[in-house]
Amino acid sequence: MDRHAFVLMEGKPVRAKIYDDLKSRVTELAREGITPKLATMVVGDDPASLAYVRGKGKSAARLGIDSDQVNLAEGTSQEEIISRIDTWNADSGIHGILVQLPLPHGYDEPAILENISLTKDVDGFHKANMGALAMKGMEPLFAPCTPRGIMEMLRFYNINIQGKEAVVLGRSNIVGIPMALLLMHANATVTIAHSRTADLPAVCRRADILVAAVGRAEFVRADMVKEGAVVVDVGINRREGRLVGDVAFEEVKHKAAAVSPVPGGVGPLTVAMLMSNLVEAAERTVA
Amino acid sequence: MDRHAFVLMEGKPVRAKIYDDLKSRVTELAREGITPKLATMVVGDDPASLAYVRGKGKSAARLGIDSDQVNLAEGTSQEEIISRIDTWNADSGIHGILVQLPLPHGYDEPAILENISLTKDVDGFHKANMGALAMKGMEPLFAPCTPRGIMEMLRFYNINIQGKEAVVLGRSNIVGIPMALLLMHANATVTIAHSRTADLPAVCRRADILVAAVGRAEFVRADMVKEGAVVVDVGINRREGRLVGDVAFEEVKHKAAAVSPVPGGVGPLTVAMLMSNLVEAAERTVA
Repeated sequence: MDRHAFVLMEGKPVRAKIYDDLKSRVTELAREGITPKLATMVVGDDPASLAYVRGKGKSAARLGIDSDQVNLAEGTSQEEIISRIDTWNADSGIHGILVQLPLPHGYDEPAILENISLTKDVDGFHKANMGALAMKGMEPLFAPCTPRGIMEMLRFYNINIQGKEAVVLGRSNIVGIPMALLLMHANATVTIAHSRTADLPAVCRRADILVAAVGRAEFVRADMVKEGAVVVDVGINRREGRLVGDVAFEEVKHKAAAVSPVPGGVGPLTVAMLMSNLVEAAERTVA
Repeated sequence: MDRHAFVLMEGKPVRAKIYDDLKSRVTELAREGITPKLATMVVGDDPASLAYVRGKGKSAARLGIDSDQVNLAEGTSQEEIISRIDTWNADSGIHGILVQLPLPHGYDEPAILENISLTKDVDGFHKANMGALAMKGMEPLFAPCTPRGIMEMLRFYNINIQGKEAVVLGRSNIVGIPMALLLMHANATVTIAHSRTADLPAVCRRADILVAAVGRAEFVRADMVKEGAVVVDVGINRREGRLVGDVAFEEVKHKAAAVSPVPGGVGPLTVAMLMSNLVEAAERTVA
């Protein structure tokens, strides 16, 4: 990569492109008499969860997508949560179901998520969708939104993936694992690094493409980045009242060929890909 | 690792240990009136497939496990195959269902495998079992037999996995992908390398644990192996009438700390883990 052409990989232009496409598809669906509809559930009153879901509802509205938000009190039984999901599964007017994670302590998240119909699993967290994402020759109905958004970002900024060394820092179900699988299927040579990795800086320095998803403020320093690497920052950490990513942006930007900022990088794309998954779900209901 | 203590990782002693354990569990099940039973299906008359399934039947018999083998002519409709699977799914006397892969050309393998009940998916190839294998905090009902066998082999030979660099060569659904996931959950730093990897020898040389599953005779040469590495050879290739692995054993053994031979290494463990999965399936039916 050309050292002199530093690219700030902002999420907004990527999102704008995605939304342009989605808007015309929503218009197309309206002609078929279909308004895509998202059902969201928040259990408890965690302010961050409530804010995230509100944001999703707003984005939906802007695109002409309906959304139902159900807020259940902490302490609601798991059976009741599942029964609500079942009702949504059976409702042909609802195209996507989202249970905002994390659930409060004490709920069995995987057991709950398993009840979401595969065809409405717009978060892509159902084990059968994750398995299809893992396997060669299969296509999941939905892939998790953040990794999908990152793939869109890399495409938008013309980052070549095939044959590149990619290092994914972090192995969460929501980002790290599906990210590694998507990059592998795109023919990168993928390494998943994590808290037990012996020499994390050395492993990170191998990366042509480094995806940081560890949830630790400015964890990735310049000495962990190869000259000319592409660095994707998935972290959203709060430090002294402001948002900072997992990447020490100010020092890394002098070394990397491209970095996604926080805020304004990956963030906007997660909701955009949720909307994309939802519109796709609605389109699949058209014979 | 001590350079002077070269370990030939033979499969037979590992298998013997597994079978000792399984025999006592089968005896225990007999007390409950249960004989574990495997149903196997071969479509077509590929001699290798028929031989594999025969071998599985023999191993089962030796352990006191029943097996039914159904051989369907090539050209049998996909619906008929699925209907046979459905019959087995509904039969409480059958604890595990195995469709021998690869199916002849023209069948939709994933679509067929999806019909196997998750609780009888002893090959571990159902996308929901694969997804649970991929995800943190979830346990698949069954993990694929060859990678599970390799984990048993590494444990048997006291190979430390945590914090080690593992490189998996090959990204098949049957070996490479589930192998990488198992090693990742065991806290290795895992890289999946494949045909599109830019500098394969260099990537392989990073490995403390190298798993070769590319299906190319003696593909891994000494210059691709780090001094003192543990090398697991999953290849079964035929060359001039004899079986050779994916690893050039004669040259690699002088460099590696441990190598699994072909034949006699990983091979015996695949069937052993199938039996292990089957016995576990039968045990789960005991309330």
